[in-house]
Amino acid sequence: MLSFVVRKGKLQIQEERIPRLRPGWAVVRVRLAGICNTDVEILRGYHEFRRTPGHEFVGEVVECADRKWIGRRVVGEINISCQGLGRKAKCDFCRRGISTHCEHRRVLGIIGHDGAFAEYLTLPVCNLHKVPSNVSDEQAVFAEPLAAACEILEQVDLRAHREVAVLGDGKLAQLIARVLHAAGPRVTMLGKHEEKLALARKAGIATAKANHKKRWTLVVEATGSAHGLEQALAMLAPRGTLVLKSTFHGAARLETWPIVVHEISVVGSRCGPFRPALKMLRDGRVDPRPLISRVFPLHEAVAAIRHAQRRGVMKVLLKTQEVLPG
Amino acid sequence: MLSFVVRKGKLQIQEERIPRLRPGWAVVRVRLAGICNTDVEILRGYHEFRRTPGHEFVGEVVECADRKWIGRRVVGEINISCQGLGRKAKCDFCRRGISTHCEHRRVLGIIGHDGAFAEYLTLPVCNLHKVPSNVSDEQAVFAEPLAAACEILEQVDLRAHREVAVLGDGKLAQLIARVLHAAGPRVTMLGKHEEKLALARKAGIATAKANHKKRWTLVVEATGSAHGLEQALAMLAPRGTLVLKSTFHGAARLETWPIVVHEISVVGSRCGPFRPALKMLRDGRVDPRPLISRVFPLHEAVAAIRHAQRRGVMKVLLKTQEVLPG
Repeated sequence: MLSFVVRKGKLQIQEERIPRLRPGWAVVRVRLAGICNTDVEILRGYHEFRRTPGHEFVGEVVECADRKWIGRRVVGEINISCQGLGRKAKCDFCRRGISTHCEHRRVLGIIGHDGAFAEYLTLPVCNLHKVPSNVSDEQAVFAEPLAAACEILEQVDLRAHREVAVLGDGKLAQLIARVLHAAGPRVTMLGKHEEKLALARKAGIATAKANHKKRWTLVVEATGSAHGLEQALAMLAPRGTLVLKSTFHGAARLETWPIVVHEISVVGSRCGPFRPALKMLRDGRVDPRPLISRVFPLHEAVAAIRHAQRRGVMKVLLKTQEVLPG
Repeated sequence: MLSFVVRKGKLQIQEERIPRLRPGWAVVRVRLAGICNTDVEILRGYHEFRRTPGHEFVGEVVECADRKWIGRRVVGEINISCQGLGRKAKCDFCRRGISTHCEHRRVLGIIGHDGAFAEYLTLPVCNLHKVPSNVSDEQAVFAEPLAAACEILEQVDLRAHREVAVLGDGKLAQLIARVLHAAGPRVTMLGKHEEKLALARKAGIATAKANHKKRWTLVVEATGSAHGLEQALAMLAPRGTLVLKSTFHGAARLETWPIVVHEISVVGSRCGPFRPALKMLRDGRVDPRPLISRVFPLHEAVAAIRHAQRRGVMKVLLKTQEVLPG
């Protein structure tokens, strides 16, 4: 099969065997894969991952011991935990039901397991979610980042906040703003790029320039930049909550006294639950399709990831060649 | 009266009038004042405060419109809020009962109001707390930092943690460890200074060297250093809570991705409630007296603050000359 791997900070094409089926797992033919900033960070050295990247996908099951999965259109949770790894004794986190923090976890396309920039991938069946029939591939490929946005709903009691600021106007910020907007409070996106802010406004989200003077009780930082945390801290009212979403390779200088003096709570937020994400797609409460900038065929992944880093470009997708029946 | 002010990064002695009595306020003769790391940071430029520092004190009321306060031994909350400032319309925070974050606040010896490195100070009566008769001056002078330690009990549900790590072995870390120890969980202090760790052990607190490999669900950072946050992050288990206590003048380089990837909650913690602090002193559940390194007479404040910065020195107190009766 066609796949890509990370070599010396770049994607390299390769011909590889289709991954073999393991007990309790499924082999999935990838239909669409999404390029995320984390993939770009991986090329820069994040996690020192040297295999096939890609953790946003929609595909169809082509091999599975449990025959009812065959042919199903699926998305997949990316953290492969004790259960998926077939460990008899679960780790402390899996026992507590927090399998996204499994001590032994591998992460699709990020840590120790080949990802979705390939014609086929494998995942444990327990990681898979069936895609509702009214949700298109172009919507379903957003399930993973949408789930990450939904994680905020699990961590913060939105009822305590009439308003929320989303700092950043990129791909993840756009999804977060849409999820929060669907969940209730008035959402304002603060960003630098007029064309991206305009995209948010079309979804009913208020926007403002990032140097806005207002103080917020809840700010979600999704700039993807090293300076996002400091910027977000300056936007917060005393006793406010800051949800931190950006991961990047490197460090930033930070004055920490505002956290203490204003008694800010900073909440790190990573992967989230797929069920509410798929439900939002199914019910049409969030439509991520306007965020798609361009679709490349899989074999042009190198050009696609270059394109994804261009100014103003939002989500770039990789499409696997259709398999013709017969 | 004798007092000290900050001039060009140093304490300077001066002769000043006794502050005048305002309606709703009291004039307090300072008996003992404590030197805190924040005072040292103020000399380094923190808050650009150029008046009389000192926010830890015990004293006696010498002037007050409400005569029942005269002669009472008191400690005082340091945040002077809308109520104390006599504002008719309370700010948003005061209305919500969070007067420590009052928008208009002045802070004794830190922001806009002269502090306790003087023979007399003034505070609104609503800031004062009577010292229980069985609590000595040497204990009562710790009420303010003990209250700051008690703030943690308001912010974190300790029942969710069987163990807690206190990072740092200085004055505030020692008080925090004692308060947490009194509150229930097993407390381990992680520090660099054997003689300070020994002091904690005498109070029944476990100790370890700071490079200990264990992962904790709750870490209180009280190093007073720019690197404390990064160190504390490395000690935390996924979904762990980090209480941040250190304030200092300056910035530190920080990799923020562990906060996101491990979904850490960082909770800033500043001033706290005096009532539980005084109750702990009254009931003998916390005894801070072993932390006193030396008592200087007030007029030697310059030497005292120099001494307070020496390696191994814990709490340094300033004692005002006794007023002889008659």
